[in-house]
Amino acid sequence: VGEGPSVGFADRLAALVEERRSQIVLGLDPDPSALWPDAVGEEPARAGALGGAAGTGEPARADEVAALTAAAVERHCRLAIDAAGPHCVAVKPQLACFERLGAPGWAALEATVRAAQQAGLLVIADAKRGDVPVSAKAYAQALVGETPGPYGAVKGLGVDAFTANPLLGRDALEPLIETGAGCFVLVRTSNPGAAEIQDEPHDQPLYERLARMVDELGKSHTTGESGLSNVGAVTGATRPDLLQRLRELMPKAIFLLPGVGAQGGSPEDLAPAFATHPAGGLIAASRSIVGAHAQTGGDPAQAAARAAEELRKAAWR
Amino acid sequence: VGEGPSVGFADRLAALVEERRSQIVLGLDPDPSALWPDAVGEEPARAGALGGAAGTGEPARADEVAALTAAAVERHCRLAIDAAGPHCVAVKPQLACFERLGAPGWAALEATVRAAQQAGLLVIADAKRGDVPVSAKAYAQALVGETPGPYGAVKGLGVDAFTANPLLGRDALEPLIETGAGCFVLVRTSNPGAAEIQDEPHDQPLYERLARMVDELGKSHTTGESGLSNVGAVTGATRPDLLQRLRELMPKAIFLLPGVGAQGGSPEDLAPAFATHPAGGLIAASRSIVGAHAQTGGDPAQAAARAAEELRKAAWR
Repeated sequence: VGEGPSVGFADRLAALVEERRSQIVLGLDPDPSALWPDAVGEEPARAGALGGAAGTGEPARADEVAALTAAAVERHCRLAIDAAGPHCVAVKPQLACFERLGAPGWAALEATVRAAQQAGLLVIADAKRGDVPVSAKAYAQALVGETPGPYGAVKGLGVDAFTANPLLGRDALEPLIETGAGCFVLVRTSNPGAAEIQDEPHDQPLYERLARMVDELGKSHTTGESGLSNVGAVTGATRPDLLQRLRELMPKAIFLLPGVGAQGGSPEDLAPAFATHPAGGLIAASRSIVGAHAQTGGDPAQAAARAAEELRKAAWR
Repeated sequence: VGEGPSVGFADRLAALVEERRSQIVLGLDPDPSALWPDAVGEEPARAGALGGAAGTGEPARADEVAALTAAAVERHCRLAIDAAGPHCVAVKPQLACFERLGAPGWAALEATVRAAQQAGLLVIADAKRGDVPVSAKAYAQALVGETPGPYGAVKGLGVDAFTANPLLGRDALEPLIETGAGCFVLVRTSNPGAAEIQDEPHDQPLYERLARMVDELGKSHTTGESGLSNVGAVTGATRPDLLQRLRELMPKAIFLLPGVGAQGGSPEDLAPAFATHPAGGLIAASRSIVGAHAQTGGDPAQAAARAAEELRKAAWR
């Protein structure tokens, strides 16, 4: 699509959305207990039979279990990217699902990021990070930058965008936004409990204050011809009644819309997100794609490809 | 001090505070560019001279740089624990500083957690995690639980407590709290930008709403004779004028107080935190201990031990 590295996230995304006619983001929330069979293969039996390094029949050692599990998670993600990726514009790995496998899990995350990018997909790290400015800078280094040190610079994950938590305020978001990567700020999340904090009926609910802040922060990060900003917003698809108002408050923001499918949201209700630009909304789906075979039966890869394509068509008017 | 694993975090902490007469938490925010010299040693020169695996004089490969840097960070943390740990009750590793070194960084974090626990210290992971319930459960597995899978269960970090972000509401905090570990919920953070979101003048500022939620969540996690709850609160030491009110709202919560020292807070102003119990407040300090030698000159370990002991005495009335 002809973008160089100097093109911002919003405009790379806008071009890719037009090219692929898709606004679908493949969520990767790998659960080691529900991996695709091809990702696990014969190894559980082998691991049980061979046991530790000496093949003594003892239970596998903790670090072997972590390494085997992380390798299977990585294979699962590659298979999901191969199957559903062609119908999507981005993947969204949930960092919690990799962190819980320790250092091998982080290595699997790095490999998944590379695999998705090699498949022509953008990567949105679902990290929901937020911290005081000095630590936010460290998270920025971890996600998209690099960390100088006595042996040279250590490269970060190298993702294209990430999610961020705004509770700590503007000075805490700035180190993340200044990276130039896409930054999706939590404005109205998709879980039921969000109402208590984010919707509390004041003269101005918290989500409105957050939306105004996102709009202001994004003004100086809108560079290309799409008119979209690198500072986006996470706005749950489970409250479509709020989208019109949120679009008014954040005309340039790309909305990342979790909650379609398993959480009950429907792509038909999301029109305000797309009102400004076809890339103004991204529909994030994980269980309804990667776990589609649990509903439909059959091969997980075929079921995932079918679910992703159905969702793409439903969203693309 | 006689606590078994069935004793909750709050009561283990309470006993340790009394035993060590300290409320100090050693913050570990390792910056690879400012490690103690003994942690780095001669290796930067060697790494530069030897270059890659073949000793060709080429620049070191990316994964070697990450591994060398993470090993130095781990040594730095061990030295800081050896020096300042005896004056403290806990360490607080900032996860961002380890994540930015990739998989080797996560391994260094695991080793640092073990080293601190072997030194008799509690570990509070400064993770500031917060996500929808299914992902919050994955973070809980990463921090204190384990993850079942086809090769057996993968153990998490095994920390004693962690910090958590409440923006997503109660259902998102519950999987973290149900672990039984200590959970410090962000209520009023120490950075300047916190005011815009957390103090916004409504009839009830957000931090008051968060404080009420913390108090309610903590009621069923107060088990031992200390009367302290496993559900604590992060309440920045930079706004001591709020502490009296926050203590009224959260009588059972342990306050984790960042912002003393480098950020301008003073231990003398924190009395309301300690009003209910000597372990009712924990003073988290990192730069002012680990970086004390930058102010005082001399050996980093001696300067850190001195700074930790001075802070301990100032806080302990």
